[in-house]
Amino acid sequence: MSIKIGIMGYGNLGRGIECAIKQNPDMQLVAVFTRRAPETVRILTEGVSVCHVDDLLDYKDKIDVLLLCGGSATDLPVQTPEYAKYFTVVDSFDTHAKIPEHFENVDKAAKENKNIAVISCGWDPGMFSLNRLYASAILPDGKDYTFWGKGVSQGHSDAIRRIDGVLDARQYTIPVEEALNAVRSGSGPELTTREKHLRECFVVVADGADKERIETEIKTMPNYFADYDTIVHFISMEELKRDHSGIAHGGFVIRSGKTGWNNENTHVIEYSLRLDSNPEFTSSVIIACARAAYRMKIEGQSGCKTMFDIPPAYLSPKSSEELRLKML
Amino acid sequence: MSIKIGIMGYGNLGRGIECAIKQNPDMQLVAVFTRRAPETVRILTEGVSVCHVDDLLDYKDKIDVLLLCGGSATDLPVQTPEYAKYFTVVDSFDTHAKIPEHFENVDKAAKENKNIAVISCGWDPGMFSLNRLYASAILPDGKDYTFWGKGVSQGHSDAIRRIDGVLDARQYTIPVEEALNAVRSGSGPELTTREKHLRECFVVVADGADKERIETEIKTMPNYFADYDTIVHFISMEELKRDHSGIAHGGFVIRSGKTGWNNENTHVIEYSLRLDSNPEFTSSVIIACARAAYRMKIEGQSGCKTMFDIPPAYLSPKSSEELRLKML
Repeated sequence: MSIKIGIMGYGNLGRGIECAIKQNPDMQLVAVFTRRAPETVRILTEGVSVCHVDDLLDYKDKIDVLLLCGGSATDLPVQTPEYAKYFTVVDSFDTHAKIPEHFENVDKAAKENKNIAVISCGWDPGMFSLNRLYASAILPDGKDYTFWGKGVSQGHSDAIRRIDGVLDARQYTIPVEEALNAVRSGSGPELTTREKHLRECFVVVADGADKERIETEIKTMPNYFADYDTIVHFISMEELKRDHSGIAHGGFVIRSGKTGWNNENTHVIEYSLRLDSNPEFTSSVIIACARAAYRMKIEGQSGCKTMFDIPPAYLSPKSSEELRLKML
Repeated sequence: MSIKIGIMGYGNLGRGIECAIKQNPDMQLVAVFTRRAPETVRILTEGVSVCHVDDLLDYKDKIDVLLLCGGSATDLPVQTPEYAKYFTVVDSFDTHAKIPEHFENVDKAAKENKNIAVISCGWDPGMFSLNRLYASAILPDGKDYTFWGKGVSQGHSDAIRRIDGVLDARQYTIPVEEALNAVRSGSGPELTTREKHLRECFVVVADGADKERIETEIKTMPNYFADYDTIVHFISMEELKRDHSGIAHGGFVIRSGKTGWNNENTHVIEYSLRLDSNPEFTSSVIIACARAAYRMKIEGQSGCKTMFDIPPAYLSPKSSEELRLKML
């Protein structure tokens, strides 16, 4: 008896989930749903149908968990509460500031319809959040640090693309090695935004565009770049495509804290990820959360959950006995 | 309303828990129980009584969670099932091979008396186990590696002490840097026991003892040393006490795995600890688990649990709303 999965949206994330299903024998892909004309969407799994989103409700009893692979800006705020009415759903909503609002909306829909919805699955939010939580629960007298990268930030790349004269751009967020080492020392340093991350931009401009103005516009852009040391390279479209189409990412969550009657002992907890493919790793987390969602639904639970609410054993295909025997 | 804690056994772990309680405002130490004459045991917290273990049951309604700080060899196999009859209990049972048996015994006692017992809390078993579970659930097509150290192994130090002519000894387990780096590369190397860890021993011998024989006995001792590169230093008792009484420890859990339709992408997940005090860090994990145990008991759950079964949010003093807002 495998868990029957539906994928909503077939971009990088949807494709990543399709690949992850192949690695998890307890999962079975039932259908991919798209807003495009289904016949124009080619998927990798043989014998699985691509359906138009309008036909989704026909699959109400054929799917155990529907995985929502849309974007956090406009898709998920609408889709997750809507589909939580009919399905057990999982999303990777990652607009941190809007998580409480999203949670409330989804929780209401899921509870009213006795479904489970797991939101904000991935690595940040997701595994990084879990590590912040565990480390702070263990070391209450301490400090948390999160470093991202090296990896492409979609939001920052988009911000550069909106500048007049820019044809395309890719922005890498890079953790500053000295800052990482200061944190690892356990000294609990106060670090400014500028001290933690570097921003490196690769920019393609239109013929005759004013590079000096563009560079200044990037480096002084509030919120995005003004508080950082920013490096700008102008390159050709050919170079951008050849050298900067990777989707690698990663980062570090570090907490140092004190214990002892007089706080005399220091401890450093570090979690890090080095990912060749950001969307495929996120997809792999989503699949594990789909397994947990399925189990919670079967238990009769309902409402919105995050990874904070999931007993870790629910993520694994192994039985509790096997986990205790082999992993504890 | 704070969580009322009893500590059973006042060694390094018991003292560590006493310190951890001071850092957690939602916790209150009610009493320390000992097998020694209570008047001979001095604790750090003012106004808290030290009681003989024989008086434990008088505290049945005065304690929310009893933390068992005995050893895994002989204390906990008896104490945890026994006290789970009367209390919500937490232990740090760490004999990996015997966890399934310990779980069964404790589960029976806890279920029959509608109590919660959380066993094997700490870092290995504990946080390391959790990281093995999470990483393997996310990357099913991968390999796990656990490295310990640098830190003192009590079991190996004891093994050396049993050799004729040895007065005292301290054994450090040290991860091999080249092996760590090979694992971090994501290449998924096959590593022998010898390639992963080094064993460094500091040994004090009796006057006139045959050092050559002792060194050979150490290096060829089956299970403990024969499969490792082992370095033996002979030092004076004074040097041992001065330079080798630290209780620092740590280690690394690393999983690398593949994703993608053709396994074309590699990911590396790494969790590491660097601990000034092994017992105080373990105590800090136990205290977080005590909070979770208290919550599960209040919910009406019963039986034996491990950290695999605890929703992470239960470990934190923060509310679910606050966790979602600040940590997700």
